[in-house]
Amino acid sequence: MHKKIILASTSPRRKELLEREGIDFIVDASFIEETLDDSLPIDERLRQLAIKKATPIHQKYPQDIVIGADTVVYFENQVIGKAHSREEANQILHRLSHHKHDVYTAVAIYDADTLTSFCEKTEVYFKDITDMIEAYLDSNEWEGKAGAYGIQGAAEVFVDHIVGDKDNVIGLPVCRIKDYLLKK
Amino acid sequence: MHKKIILASTSPRRKELLEREGIDFIVDASFIEETLDDSLPIDERLRQLAIKKATPIHQKYPQDIVIGADTVVYFENQVIGKAHSREEANQILHRLSHHKHDVYTAVAIYDADTLTSFCEKTEVYFKDITDMIEAYLDSNEWEGKAGAYGIQGAAEVFVDHIVGDKDNVIGLPVCRIKDYLLKK
Repeated sequence: MHKKIILASTSPRRKELLEREGIDFIVDASFIEETLDDSLPIDERLRQLAIKKATPIHQKYPQDIVIGADTVVYFENQVIGKAHSREEANQILHRLSHHKHDVYTAVAIYDADTLTSFCEKTEVYFKDITDMIEAYLDSNEWEGKAGAYGIQGAAEVFVDHIVGDKDNVIGLPVCRIKDYLLKK
Repeated sequence: MHKKIILASTSPRRKELLEREGIDFIVDASFIEETLDDSLPIDERLRQLAIKKATPIHQKYPQDIVIGADTVVYFENQVIGKAHSREEANQILHRLSHHKHDVYTAVAIYDADTLTSFCEKTEVYFKDITDMIEAYLDSNEWEGKAGAYGIQGAAEVFVDHIVGDKDNVIGLPVCRIKDYLLKK
């Protein structure tokens, strides 16, 4: 039987990343409350959240491959999620300016009844972006993105350099997922 | 670097099963509260519990292979755990007599930062064991075992036949674990 691949995420960026790889998949995601267990290290917390996102979709397609993911920006031991207002985005970007932050994407893959999950970290070093923030906020690109920026858009100029997988910052460590899909 | 294998379980039966396979490992387990999220299907609940058992040990040996497991007897949509008294063991065995029950073992394997988990089911068909229960209870073999019996001991005669992996009933689907360890 040919297994379907289901992306359990509504993120248009994740969808684009998988499409770029020529992977044949459908999207089916359910809303889940994004609460994190603070007593665990960040990678474990995110991994649990990715599993939580994938599980209801796995129950819907129990024989197929279901991919869930969660991406956060981690800075000074704090999770930086999405900004809910322009003012909050402004504050976040000023904090990140001229500093290094980590982007974590946790992935959970159900392959029928086998669940595999991992968490990939990429270090992102920002230039001093003080003078660029105002224009960036005007673009509205900060909306809906962890850390109030999208590395694949206008915010590309914020980045001095990165250490790790750039796709992981966009929202999915595609290379590692492909490795997994090919290894089975 | 050669990775260590750590069995995150104090069960002497699991230890024996891995030893039988000639796998080189150490045992290091932490006590965790065995609470199950009732809103999930049984296999998901157990899988989470196995992960919960393995996670603190993974944090101790972040670069190695850590195996956690949890085994339950499932009968008439109910989880049958360990009996806490001879009387409870007696009741459990009378319920299981002349019926089929399922034994689930969930396994969580950390391999450095990749977590894999699955849940294996074996169907066990008991004969009418009414006349054998009293003697079995005298043996004290029911203590500390899910469903108040151990298939590898005197309770072997309870079994009419099984469908699935017998090792899974003892506490670890060794074959599937070996598959995983060889595939890496």
